[in-house]
Amino acid sequence: MSGRTISGKEVAQHNSRESCWIIVHGKVYDVTEFLPDHPGGSKIILKYAGKDATAEYDPIHPPDAITTNLPPEKHLGPVDVGTVEKVEIVITDQEKARQERMNARPPLSEILNLHDFEAIAKLVMPEKAWAYYSSAADDEITNRENHAAYHRIWFRPRILRDVTNVDWSTTILGQKSRMPLYISATALGKLGHPDGELNLTRAAAKHGVIQMIPTLASCSFDELVDNAAPGQVQFLQLYVNKDREITKKIVQHAEERGIKGLFITVDAPQLGRREKDMRMKFEAEDPAEVTSNKQEDKVDRSQGAARAISSFIDPGLDWKDLPWFKSITKMPIILKGVQCWEDALIAYDQGLAGVVLSNHGGRQLDFARSGIEILVEVVAKLGELRGLKFPNEKFQLFVDGGVRRATDVIKAVALGATAVGVGRPFIYAFSAFGYEGVDRALEILNDEFEMNMRLIGARNLKEIVPEMVDAHNIHQHVVAVPGDRLYDNNYEDMQIARLRDIKSKL
Amino acid sequence: MSGRTISGKEVAQHNSRESCWIIVHGKVYDVTEFLPDHPGGSKIILKYAGKDATAEYDPIHPPDAITTNLPPEKHLGPVDVGTVEKVEIVITDQEKARQERMNARPPLSEILNLHDFEAIAKLVMPEKAWAYYSSAADDEITNRENHAAYHRIWFRPRILRDVTNVDWSTTILGQKSRMPLYISATALGKLGHPDGELNLTRAAAKHGVIQMIPTLASCSFDELVDNAAPGQVQFLQLYVNKDREITKKIVQHAEERGIKGLFITVDAPQLGRREKDMRMKFEAEDPAEVTSNKQEDKVDRSQGAARAISSFIDPGLDWKDLPWFKSITKMPIILKGVQCWEDALIAYDQGLAGVVLSNHGGRQLDFARSGIEILVEVVAKLGELRGLKFPNEKFQLFVDGGVRRATDVIKAVALGATAVGVGRPFIYAFSAFGYEGVDRALEILNDEFEMNMRLIGARNLKEIVPEMVDAHNIHQHVVAVPGDRLYDNNYEDMQIARLRDIKSKL
Amino acid sequence: MSGRTISGKEVAQHNSRESCWIIVHGKVYDVTEFLPDHPGGSKIILKYAGKDATAEYDPIHPPDAITTNLPPEKHLGPVDVGTVEKVEIVITDQEKARQERMNARPPLSEILNLHDFEAIAKLVMPEKAWAYYSSAADDEITNRENHAAYHRIWFRPRILRDVTNVDWSTTILGQKSRMPLYISATALGKLGHPDGELNLTRAAAKHGVIQMIPTLASCSFDELVDNAAPGQVQFLQLYVNKDREITKKIVQHAEERGIKGLFITVDAPQLGRREKDMRMKFEAEDPAEVTSNKQEDKVDRSQGAARAISSFIDPGLDWKDLPWFKSITKMPIILKGVQCWEDALIAYDQGLAGVVLSNHGGRQLDFARSGIEILVEVVAKLGELRGLKFPNEKFQLFVDGGVRRATDVIKAVALGATAVGVGRPFIYAFSAFGYEGVDRALEILNDEFEMNMRLIGARNLKEIVPEMVDAHNIHQHVVAVPGDRLYDNNYEDMQIARLRDIKSKL
Amino acid sequence: MSGRTISGKEVAQHNSRESCWIIVHGKVYDVTEFLPDHPGGSKIILKYAGKDATAEYDPIHPPDAITTNLPPEKHLGPVDVGTVEKVEIVITDQEKARQERMNARPPLSEILNLHDFEAIAKLVMPEKAWAYYSSAADDEITNRENHAAYHRIWFRPRILRDVTNVDWSTTILGQKSRMPLYISATALGKLGHPDGELNLTRAAAKHGVIQMIPTLASCSFDELVDNAAPGQVQFLQLYVNKDREITKKIVQHAEERGIKGLFITVDAPQLGRREKDMRMKFEAEDPAEVTSNKQEDKVDRSQGAARAISSFIDPGLDWKDLPWFKSITKMPIILKGVQCWEDALIAYDQGLAGVVLSNHGGRQLDFARSGIEILVEVVAKLGELRGLKFPNEKFQLFVDGGVRRATDVIKAVALGATAVGVGRPFIYAFSAFGYEGVDRALEILNDEFEMNMRLIGARNLKEIVPEMVDAHNIHQHVVAVPGDRLYDNNYEDMQIARLRDIKSKL
Repeated sequence: MSGRTISGKEVAQHNSRESCWIIVHGKVYDVTEFLPDHPGGSKIILKYAGKDATAEYDPIHPPDAITTNLPPEKHLGPVDVGTVEKVEIVITDQEKARQERMNARPPLSEILNLHDFEAIAKLVMPEKAWAYYSSAADDEITNRENHAAYHRIWFRPRILRDVTNVDWSTTILGQKSRMPLYISATALGKLGHPDGELNLTRAAAKHGVIQMIPTLASCSFDELVDNAAPGQVQFLQLYVNKDREITKKIVQHAEERGIKGLFITVDAPQLGRREKDMRMKFEAEDPAEVTSNKQEDKVDRSQGAARAISSFIDPGLDWKDLPWFKSITKMPIILKGVQCWEDALIAYDQGLAGVVLSNHGGRQLDFARSGIEILVEVVAKLGELRGLKFPNEKFQLFVDGGVRRATDVIKAVALGATAVGVGRPFIYAFSAFGYEGVDRALEILNDEFEMNMRLIGARNLKEIVPEMVDAHNIHQHVVAVPGDRLYDNNYEDMQIARLRDIKSKL
Repeated sequence: MSGRTISGKEVAQHNSRESCWIIVHGKVYDVTEFLPDHPGGSKIILKYAGKDATAEYDPIHPPDAITTNLPPEKHLGPVDVGTVEKVEIVITDQEKARQERMNARPPLSEILNLHDFEAIAKLVMPEKAWAYYSSAADDEITNRENHAAYHRIWFRPRILRDVTNVDWSTTILGQKSRMPLYISATALGKLGHPDGELNLTRAAAKHGVIQMIPTLASCSFDELVDNAAPGQVQFLQLYVNKDREITKKIVQHAEERGIKGLFITVDAPQLGRREKDMRMKFEAEDPAEVTSNKQEDKVDRSQGAARAISSFIDPGLDWKDLPWFKSITKMPIILKGVQCWEDALIAYDQGLAGVVLSNHGGRQLDFARSGIEILVEVVAKLGELRGLKFPNEKFQLFVDGGVRRATDVIKAVALGATAVGVGRPFIYAFSAFGYEGVDRALEILNDEFEMNMRLIGARNLKEIVPEMVDAHNIHQHVVAVPGDRLYDNNYEDMQIARLRDIKSKL
Repeated sequence: MSGRTISGKEVAQHNSRESCWIIVHGKVYDVTEFLPDHPGGSKIILKYAGKDATAEYDPIHPPDAITTNLPPEKHLGPVDVGTVEKVEIVITDQEKARQERMNARPPLSEILNLHDFEAIAKLVMPEKAWAYYSSAADDEITNRENHAAYHRIWFRPRILRDVTNVDWSTTILGQKSRMPLYISATALGKLGHPDGELNLTRAAAKHGVIQMIPTLASCSFDELVDNAAPGQVQFLQLYVNKDREITKKIVQHAEERGIKGLFITVDAPQLGRREKDMRMKFEAEDPAEVTSNKQEDKVDRSQGAARAISSFIDPGLDWKDLPWFKSITKMPIILKGVQCWEDALIAYDQGLAGVVLSNHGGRQLDFARSGIEILVEVVAKLGELRGLKFPNEKFQLFVDGGVRRATDVIKAVALGATAVGVGRPFIYAFSAFGYEGVDRALEILNDEFEMNMRLIGARNLKEIVPEMVDAHNIHQHVVAVPGDRLYDNNYEDMQIARLRDIKSKL
Repeated sequence: MSGRTISGKEVAQHNSRESCWIIVHGKVYDVTEFLPDHPGGSKIILKYAGKDATAEYDPIHPPDAITTNLPPEKHLGPVDVGTVEKVEIVITDQEKARQERMNARPPLSEILNLHDFEAIAKLVMPEKAWAYYSSAADDEITNRENHAAYHRIWFRPRILRDVTNVDWSTTILGQKSRMPLYISATALGKLGHPDGELNLTRAAAKHGVIQMIPTLASCSFDELVDNAAPGQVQFLQLYVNKDREITKKIVQHAEERGIKGLFITVDAPQLGRREKDMRMKFEAEDPAEVTSNKQEDKVDRSQGAARAISSFIDPGLDWKDLPWFKSITKMPIILKGVQCWEDALIAYDQGLAGVVLSNHGGRQLDFARSGIEILVEVVAKLGELRGLKFPNEKFQLFVDGGVRRATDVIKAVALGATAVGVGRPFIYAFSAFGYEGVDRALEILNDEFEMNMRLIGARNLKEIVPEMVDAHNIHQHVVAVPGDRLYDNNYEDMQIARLRDIKSKL
């Protein structure tokens, strides 16, 4: 970086796609080459080309985002602050309408379940944020299957057990947790709320649950650790960098800061195509800049937020790398994204601490099976081949994806999971209501656990046994024969009794 | 209770949430602390704070509700009647519209099936009552599965049997019943009709079926027994009180009054979260009182009617308590809410008279299986392990939940049930049409039984054998793979032939 | 019947529900007691109380309907024709609209499949007729299952067979048929078209298929036989009368007239409750006469057309009666309405000529299985127990219900049926287009047979073998787990690509 | 053909259905007898009766269509060009609207998947073309099942394999292909785009994939070969002519021109009834000419494009003909349209090069099973009976129908297919966007392959093994029990949380 101070006037000349400089926190950056890679699209940067972008930048980026993503030679140096023109932030009608909806949120006491947070978040979040969080791979079949799979598991509750006192606390990788559930890692939290992942840190502290810090958090890692309560347990989710030195630095720094578990993501050698997110980007672009139908249009602006922020991830990560990880940290190592018993077995045989049976919230490979379905297979096969019983202290199984109710968690525990990861519902909770939303979400889950432990007849998690669920339909992937539209059109529905004369109220 | 007479003027000063007195039947009660627990919400009480609430109270409470729910020290004594200001009852527009719909009900002769009562009741009942009766646990999956499960059972009828005379009467716990069906216990009948459960008592008498009296009836137990016809058989459903002396008193009083069977509810150590009911309460509240999104809002007004009225129920009830029950009564004891063969087996081995395979109408644990599905499992396992055949005089199996047609009942009988409990349809019948509604419901069932006994080729219940049904799909809990919305959007439906030029009538 | 001639003036005095006389073909009848039993409802008769009803009567009744249904003492004698007031027929707006729709029918060449007839018939038939034909038992599950079951059977076609010439003719009970399909018996044909079942007789003659004459035809039996072409084959469907002498007369008369097969209906000891038909009756009634909600309303007008016309059917019919039938006729005897292999086996062992596996078009017992499903069971069991192969000359299996395509018929033949009965589609064909409709329907079926025989690789029916279908899903009665409405509401559909700016054409 | 030159005036006199001459490329043709056979209906020809039809003819016919379809005696000779009246082409409002939609197409960069092409094509294609391409047999069940079947197959991805470099190229019948996918033969390409199948030839060249040239191409065979790039591989799809000499000429000419594989269609002894296509024809006809409902209407105009163009196809084609084919060509011979293992086995035993497991895109026999389902059966049986492993160099299995995503292709490869045929998506691609559309479609597929190979953990096609998919549900043809409409109508949906006061944005 050149040390010279740059005048606002000079910056102002670089205000086009051909040469685009911006000012953030009093420093000038040349982002011309970065434009096509920007997760939020190039249009939003171009709006600030030659100007001070700090006010727009701050709420949705970790402080070091620009310095770490831009090569040093693009850090042009400090700006002469007095010479910079003020940027006036215009609030669009769309944004105004969104803020009105924000003001019309119902009180938290009326939020009855985790679905409700999503319903409100969908209405009050910026559309870009909604598109990023809610989107998933291809036709989003796996995304929805994650939830649907739980509906193939039914309860066999026991009666006449004294359930005056019920306790659903547990131990995850040797750490206490008040529920068999942790807050899973999800990226870009500030898209939904200015405090980003800090909302999760605070609520996790209050409720005694564990937060898994994401590599792609909007808040910096240290910010999230600094804000933890004394004794609060945090895990780290790791995307492995092509440059292993960077990875080593991250891992060892995490261990020093007291992180208690390292979850290496193994289902994302490349981040998935998420078409909802991609379509949102087109809409964000200026129609005037949209290219014609010619093949010459070589800039691929269709990749959405996920792809752009993840180019550093190493698709070459291999089983052979695992000894190296063990050599650089003493934290328990867990593979996140295991999807068949064969890989779970290798993980066990290599002495890892556990696996997360997960398809990345349906955001990677469409038609990957749900974690809860894989759990059934893994428990059966590792029992058969290695004599293991689950839940198992030595080799812990986790699942994530599609969880919305305490009953979902109880099903997973009955089938052998140590705990369940929950991601999107908590993002929706803070996107709609900030910290209080996450707090309320955890409170609701506690209420549901208390109720359902009693109703299933289990006083603690050990009493939740496999016989309490019927999961024999779990592997059924049923697709109905396409309908006979002619027959159906002809069929006249049965009618219910109707009132005379006056209109029905419904 | 202090004996002193209180002036209307003094009462009138306690007209706020901070101090709330009301007058019922000439007595003054301090209900300040009871406000958050009131099943109908606090708002409705506050409307009568400092006033005479008798006119509002009477139609929906058993006479002794207030005296038994309020500790003696809150019974403040008689009011000086002359000094009390008259309360003018204002009829809301909503209520007026409801009464218009009431007047527009179709004649009973046009009610063709049990579904019709629900269709009318939904339109003519107070919304609060509809919410309370129709709601169920969590996502109401089990609630609907109860009905859906019957659709997985198909008939294998026999032909060329002389079915000139068909008879579907039976014996339940040694008592005659004209159908293999009893009226199951459901709470708060006066929410739907001023006569409450008395409607059931009367219709049961006329049709020779058995009524199970609920612990939480709106009418008092003695009222329901007093109104029984000579020789009319009644059972009692029992929620076991934390204070066993109260329970003992109830049971022994019931036996003295001639109750012929004691059904102990075992699936409700805590009453379920029923979100429709909970949402209704919010709407009933005054928006002005609705608290902000702050965590400080500690009053949990989200529990609906069910939770508030059931705090006395003992979650500590245990198999160990059963000998005590046998020691205090000679009535046959049946467990209501058994949900797997293991518990049915224990009940049999402990010498009980039977079990009701039930999930409490889907109002307790969501994803509990339907009674009819559990029946198949229980019959198979108790046959295998104890050599029992069903229906069985010594150990009777009952199911409830989801029954709407005589064919449903016939399926249950074919699979081994002695009789089937029906709850909501009768509530809807009297909520829409009072006693005549229940009478018509039973008449319809009789018509359906006559028809279907003939069509299946059975002259009496003994001739309804397992081979007459195909229930091999009963354990299939099928959840379709989520749809491919892009493909489906592109597909253009086949079109039926159309008329030329003019508009179709449909 | 008294021989005296009655004056129009005297008749005119009996114009009320209390005393209701009508004139038909110059004779006076006292129908007072018959009013509640009239299939078309009492209202339509009361319109002609004291008047000449001939013009209304003729198009929808067999000529002898009134004389055979009314006891002789109600036949009051001839009217003095000159003294009778003329009845003016008023055409309602509803009827006018219907006739306009009639005029807007598309040309027959545009009717492409059997569904199309139903689509048009639904629009151009009198609503009463549509209600009678289309209605079925209870919730009409079996009615629709009849069609749906065919969708669980898939083809395994063979290739590279010389299919230049394909032939789908066969022999049914020793009689030639140009298709493996017969026109099944259905009642009250004149409701849909003034020529009633004659439309079927004529088209059957032209196409060389067999018509089964119904007991409850609108045309008289002899009319249908008289109009047969030389050599045309007809069967008779028989409802057995409580008075066996009447039955004997019918059977022996049929044999004399050349009927080649006697199909005894065994699935209708009592005719089913068909609620659509019942609801239609209410609408046809005068609202002013509709009774209040009082239980005193004892007249049951809720039974629809089916029940009223069938009171003569003997619910006492028994296997013991079969030898008697064999003693009174040499026609082959087939049981229509067999629904399990056990009864098919008895029929075989008793030396009958065959059985129709049928649930009466879903109009009797709801949740009875489809004929095509029962076929699979019967073929398997009679093969196992008696070594039979199907199709079988000695003991022929037929199925009916739900057939709409030649592929449906081919599936049944592959699975062992000799032929398939088709009912409703032909009624809809003549209700919409008269004789030409039925002709076109049979032409379409021929086209479909030619095409599909070639495509499946079979030159004649013998080459249609069981291996050509995959029916292993036939016994699956799948009911989906009830949907998660909260999750589904939150899920945002994937969107297809859209045009810019302008409205789509769709 | 007579050599005399005909005057425009003489031609103009033959301007009716009774005598219809037209001019194409300066030659006069008598098409009177051809009218009812014209794929596009007679109306469009009659519009040019007695006139020059060249401008209308050119864009949708191969140059030699009229000369090969019309017998020589109908080729009347050259017209005296100067005497011919100019034909003015009128653009209808409908066509104008279509062209507006054409102009409103989104840029290709916004097309994210193969579904998108169909969505746009549906809006911008002439309706006749859409009807022809999109239609399928009978109720189009098989058509949709082709896609649905892929949804019953789920992935079991492997992790921690170095997937930095992934390669999805393969060898098909000894020819290189950059994807395990070829462009399947589809007829009448010029209906969708003036360049017809040439669009495919060009894009195939660019992307190194193989094009299968259809017998019924709109472009002539030589045109498609002439336009191939040097070294570009093409296959030929063959409908076998009743006149084997014609077939011989076609085959040997193809071999001479360098065609590398001969795909003989065996599932179309007669082309299917496609009702959407048939209905479209009616709408194209002049209502004034539509005949009445009389049976005399003998002209069958209801057969759509497919039937009319295919009368030459030999329904007598037989296994016995195969040696002859081998005697006339050295090209590898593949049967297209095999639908059960039995026929695949015969093909193998006869020494053919492979089979395409296909149901002709659902356009022939409805309820034929999907190719992907048949694949599972064929691989299992040929493994069992002949010890074969698949994919197999010596006997290659292909499937087509319903493919929309690279994941579909990967599933087929995992289950044993060498490659997959894709037809309609490419037609939609060029109908909407011409050559660039097909180019983009192949680019999208490449993107998806890269992504999904990585996510499944396979570096090349050999590493895609059967264990990577779970296809155990493939043979399940599930049809839901018909719904209970009364129950469903009564059920009140759960409600999500709502905003206060203001309208939601959705």
